[in-house]
Amino acid sequence: MIYLDNAATTLPDADSLEKASVYLKEKFFNPSAMYREGFELHKEIDAAKKHLLSFITPSSDYDLIFTSSGTEADNQALFNGIKRGNLVVNEGEHAAVYMTAKELKKRGHDVRFAKLLSDGRVDVEHLLSLIDQDTSLVSVMHVNNETGAVNDIEDIADSVKKLAPKAVFHSDGVQAFGKIVYRLSPKIDLYTISAHKIGGVRGVAGLIKRKDFHIDPYIFGGGQENGLRSGTENTFAIKQFEFAAEKRFRTLEADFLKIQEFNRYMREQLNPALFSFVSSKSASPYILCAAIRGIRAEVLLHILNDKGLLIGTGSACSSRNRYSRVILACEIKKELAEGIIRLSFSAHTTKEEIDQAVQILNESVSQLAERMK
Amino acid sequence: MIYLDNAATTLPDADSLEKASVYLKEKFFNPSAMYREGFELHKEIDAAKKHLLSFITPSSDYDLIFTSSGTEADNQALFNGIKRGNLVVNEGEHAAVYMTAKELKKRGHDVRFAKLLSDGRVDVEHLLSLIDQDTSLVSVMHVNNETGAVNDIEDIADSVKKLAPKAVFHSDGVQAFGKIVYRLSPKIDLYTISAHKIGGVRGVAGLIKRKDFHIDPYIFGGGQENGLRSGTENTFAIKQFEFAAEKRFRTLEADFLKIQEFNRYMREQLNPALFSFVSSKSASPYILCAAIRGIRAEVLLHILNDKGLLIGTGSACSSRNRYSRVILACEIKKELAEGIIRLSFSAHTTKEEIDQAVQILNESVSQLAERMK
Repeated sequence: MIYLDNAATTLPDADSLEKASVYLKEKFFNPSAMYREGFELHKEIDAAKKHLLSFITPSSDYDLIFTSSGTEADNQALFNGIKRGNLVVNEGEHAAVYMTAKELKKRGHDVRFAKLLSDGRVDVEHLLSLIDQDTSLVSVMHVNNETGAVNDIEDIADSVKKLAPKAVFHSDGVQAFGKIVYRLSPKIDLYTISAHKIGGVRGVAGLIKRKDFHIDPYIFGGGQENGLRSGTENTFAIKQFEFAAEKRFRTLEADFLKIQEFNRYMREQLNPALFSFVSSKSASPYILCAAIRGIRAEVLLHILNDKGLLIGTGSACSSRNRYSRVILACEIKKELAEGIIRLSFSAHTTKEEIDQAVQILNESVSQLAERMK
Repeated sequence: MIYLDNAATTLPDADSLEKASVYLKEKFFNPSAMYREGFELHKEIDAAKKHLLSFITPSSDYDLIFTSSGTEADNQALFNGIKRGNLVVNEGEHAAVYMTAKELKKRGHDVRFAKLLSDGRVDVEHLLSLIDQDTSLVSVMHVNNETGAVNDIEDIADSVKKLAPKAVFHSDGVQAFGKIVYRLSPKIDLYTISAHKIGGVRGVAGLIKRKDFHIDPYIFGGGQENGLRSGTENTFAIKQFEFAAEKRFRTLEADFLKIQEFNRYMREQLNPALFSFVSSKSASPYILCAAIRGIRAEVLLHILNDKGLLIGTGSACSSRNRYSRVILACEIKKELAEGIIRLSFSAHTTKEEIDQAVQILNESVSQLAERMK
């Protein structure tokens, strides 16, 4: 089996699972308990926070709120932004931001959607035209989960804050964290990260926030996470996330170069008569989005499935729709939009898998194209 | 070490961990993916839902929404209830309901709190006096997490619906599910259950709902859980919950009788000159709440900790406060309220542990009392 759907989820890292299993089997205590065994876990969770933050910033100006998923973190960021004025989000956002923004609009809030460029980056000019003094929150994802397009969030945040100094800038970094080289800057108030896209388990993610930035809780209760997110702390998942991320960041740059080379190679090897690429060359190399004219991606996906190649069609989260909302927002024509596939890699993807995938893809698509004649 | 803080969290069941590890190591796919491997996990999650529901009702009239925690499930239930009229909750609720209700009150909603009886059950007469035709939601926990008091939720729901036929009845069943014998009746619209109190891992819980009852999502995004709770499904945690619950329910009645006997024995063996009991004899045997005059529970807890006995002081979630809000609501005098301890058992608690705990408790409290003279 060749698994090229790593943007949907990744195989949890085996070493990290092993190392974290102590939190399931021995150190299972409630971190809010007042005996030593509980309190020590509380400290271990704090250490995980600091460790995870250290991968993305040398500064101690940030906090991390552990949530159950990137989706929950995005919800918390957006719901926090509706206390006044208007919200500006990017049409290409993951459903976690986009559907939350839609819900807020339905509830009567002034929510504005910025257009996309053809590669999935936000149209910055359009985005900035939507911002005014009353803008309370702007959310622009770092790496688009369908096309891999990288938004220059530092530059965008800078321009946003010039127009609306009080606006909060949030970025969903789920497809960036642990994949591309990036250091948080103070312009970014909130940044979402997730474990299961980089070898962590599901059940944990994080909302990074500037320490001096006040955010309201979204889930109320026992007051865990300094009152910002209630619910018994998922120590196992948190520590496994820490360990998996530690491994990830240790070789992040070398892996990036390797995947960049695979991505370049794949673009070269896939039959140009059959495949065109939605992802631009400046996209994150971990995601390669391609369009196949006149073929429904779903049909291809099942054929590839039979041949042992697992790929995505757009986001797994919206995979049950015929057209991807994001792909249509890129103004890809409908005849191409039906045939969108997403190949997504992990640091563990091998050259051999890439070679086999290329062969299976070229062969399957050409057979399908033949059949359609 | 003797662990008598099972109401805070339990050791994850080893067999269930082992059996579920396949979902971390092999079947790690995104259940929303369209290839077979993904879709099959989607079916396995549906099967887990049906299986978990079967433990508590033979009826197919219920659905289960997987959430990340009991707290999240309670938040979803309460936030869903604020669309009109007023909310009535019980003062003894876990922070997940109580603090959410407080937040809703702060936001201007009409939220009413029903008083407690001295053992921690809700004062039904007072509760019913708060209800009127405009009551949209009533939330009464099944088993109180601090005293073990069992509310007769069927009877209460019945009375509530006579006064307010349109009111939604929610019950937090976190300390009941997998511990006491109970079958859901159609009077209960929403019922919260959690994995980690019965040998499941953290990161998964559930909100059971009547199929014909419409509830809004609380976390928006990719539309998982039939659109009712977004975020990539935590397959490992869900299946481990299913397996752990299956084991739990297999011997639920025998375990209940065993723990009932331990509880009775402990009440008998603890020195009556030192210990008085907040938990009534009709409480869930899994929780024994005792008061020690003139001794601060925190001091005792640390002494017990040194002797290898881990116990709770009220809820782990509110353990950092000097007095428990719930204990004060039971109208326990402050001199006793300072010395509240919670002993909580699991199906795996042994007679030997009970005997040792009794000895350590009697000895430690009498030494402390001696010192205070």
